[in-house]
Amino acid sequence: MGKFLFTNILGSFVFNDKCKVVDSILFKSINDYQKKEEYGKKLIKKNKDVKEAEEKDIKKILKFFKNNKYYSEFYKNNYVLTIKGIKNSVTDDVLLCQAVNTISDVEKNINILVKRLRDWYSFYNPELADSIESHEKFVELVQTKDKKEILKYLKVKKSIGKDLSKQQLKPILELAKQVKDLFLFKQKMERNVEKIMKTLCPNLTEVAGFLLGAKLIEEAGSLQHLATMPASTIQLLGAEKALFRHIRNKRNLPPKFGVIYAHPLVQKNMDHAGKVSRALSDKISIAVRVDYFKGKFIGDKLRKELEERFE
Amino acid sequence: MGKFLFTNILGSFVFNDKCKVVDSILFKSINDYQKKEEYGKKLIKKNKDVKEAEEKDIKKILKFFKNNKYYSEFYKNNYVLTIKGIKNSVTDDVLLCQAVNTISDVEKNINILVKRLRDWYSFYNPELADSIESHEKFVELVQTKDKKEILKYLKVKKSIGKDLSKQQLKPILELAKQVKDLFLFKQKMERNVEKIMKTLCPNLTEVAGFLLGAKLIEEAGSLQHLATMPASTIQLLGAEKALFRHIRNKRNLPPKFGVIYAHPLVQKNMDHAGKVSRALSDKISIAVRVDYFKGKFIGDKLRKELEERFE
Repeated sequence: MGKFLFTNILGSFVFNDKCKVVDSILFKSINDYQKKEEYGKKLIKKNKDVKEAEEKDIKKILKFFKNNKYYSEFYKNNYVLTIKGIKNSVTDDVLLCQAVNTISDVEKNINILVKRLRDWYSFYNPELADSIESHEKFVELVQTKDKKEILKYLKVKKSIGKDLSKQQLKPILELAKQVKDLFLFKQKMERNVEKIMKTLCPNLTEVAGFLLGAKLIEEAGSLQHLATMPASTIQLLGAEKALFRHIRNKRNLPPKFGVIYAHPLVQKNMDHAGKVSRALSDKISIAVRVDYFKGKFIGDKLRKELEERFE
Repeated sequence: MGKFLFTNILGSFVFNDKCKVVDSILFKSINDYQKKEEYGKKLIKKNKDVKEAEEKDIKKILKFFKNNKYYSEFYKNNYVLTIKGIKNSVTDDVLLCQAVNTISDVEKNINILVKRLRDWYSFYNPELADSIESHEKFVELVQTKDKKEILKYLKVKKSIGKDLSKQQLKPILELAKQVKDLFLFKQKMERNVEKIMKTLCPNLTEVAGFLLGAKLIEEAGSLQHLATMPASTIQLLGAEKALFRHIRNKRNLPPKFGVIYAHPLVQKNMDHAGKVSRALSDKISIAVRVDYFKGKFIGDKLRKELEERFE
């Protein structure tokens, strides 16, 4: 009736048709397990008439391993294997996702604190908060100029705000410093993301920009996921809400873009945004596949093609 | 038919029954307007048979002032008055509310970033995030100890986390520093609130603690509002949601306390929390009234009474 080859985490085994072990190679370490195919071939060579076990044979074989004496061995080896799996799962793109998420967390924080700063500072000098829209510029002015200088800068003669004492101003300036620090931290994080992106996926970085590219990887979950996505999915990454709203309720138009909305080419060609984002996501999907399979650098060529078409 | 006295932001006027101006004192500045009653009395003395204008007279008088020539004067004076009102509205308790709100904003920020830090750091050393609950302690350990020291500290032999390179660790440590800075900033803000509270309302601070007292003022909107609230309202400040849920839907029990929940006396006597919070809000309402009307310091007496009853 022939013999069956069966391999698990403990070793490679050859069973005869009565489900007795005829020959075996036990694995000494998890490294042996990872070379299991070699060991299987060795056993097939050594014994005659050996086939891979089929479903009905496997049922019997599994009963054989149900014996308690194998349990601690199974546990130990599986534990080592799991830890190895965990460690291997921490790849550059997983760390990249954390960095990207940190950037959006810090943006959230900056918005919370700037809102508070504008509110608080407006007791003192409401003219500034009204006329400067950029948060970064606002914080800088609060930090570097006093009230007189700011009024001069704004070309306002008189402030309707209350003149606060030094002691009353101190916490406001401390808050401004905190916000400034968060801005600096965000910049640092962005430079960090840029560095990772340039080594991990130079083509994607060239076509989409490092921050947008990183956001795409984050939305997809990993570089591998992003590389296996069709261009049309990439086009709508981050617009899932709008997409499903459209599917549920046909009155809403389908979204034209997700996070690629922030790309300068889309921004410049808002009149035919659909066309641009289709072309852009197409090039992105090519770039990311080249990156994933460690291909040559073709990002500059892809980018030029896009720019020539739309600029 | 007699004459009528009418005062507005432009001056004090005496009208005869045909609605002609007989006598007047024009206000030169907003300060004159604030002494309007003196000027009114002067005119009453000087002219005979002058009464305050009544409703039917006022209608006529207002038509008199509808003349375009008064508009610019009205506008100018009202503008000055409004600005004065705005400046006067910026009181110590308004600034206090901003500081209190800043503290809760910073708490929100810390929670967002600590969550991210725990997530990110766990790739490297998951044992730490699992075993240290206190955010502050966690950040401190990440900042001050390396992986080996931390494992020793936790009495864990081997970490299942991946050993990250220095470059991969750098942004994580930068994030930890940012969180640490936010903790320090929060402490600064708290000291600032403490300072204001001790001068603005020493009694409330003594009975409720500076942070809880400040939160009560913030919930009420101002010290004046808090001083005019009944004790039972103070007891439930900050529990409005639970209260209205109870009112709408009788199945839910009414809340026993709002922000005063954080008071150590309530925390210690959770078995009869209702009783303690009733007594506490009672003393708080006394303390805050004494503070608002600039009375003597009786906070220590009030606190002692509470402590004797519940400790």
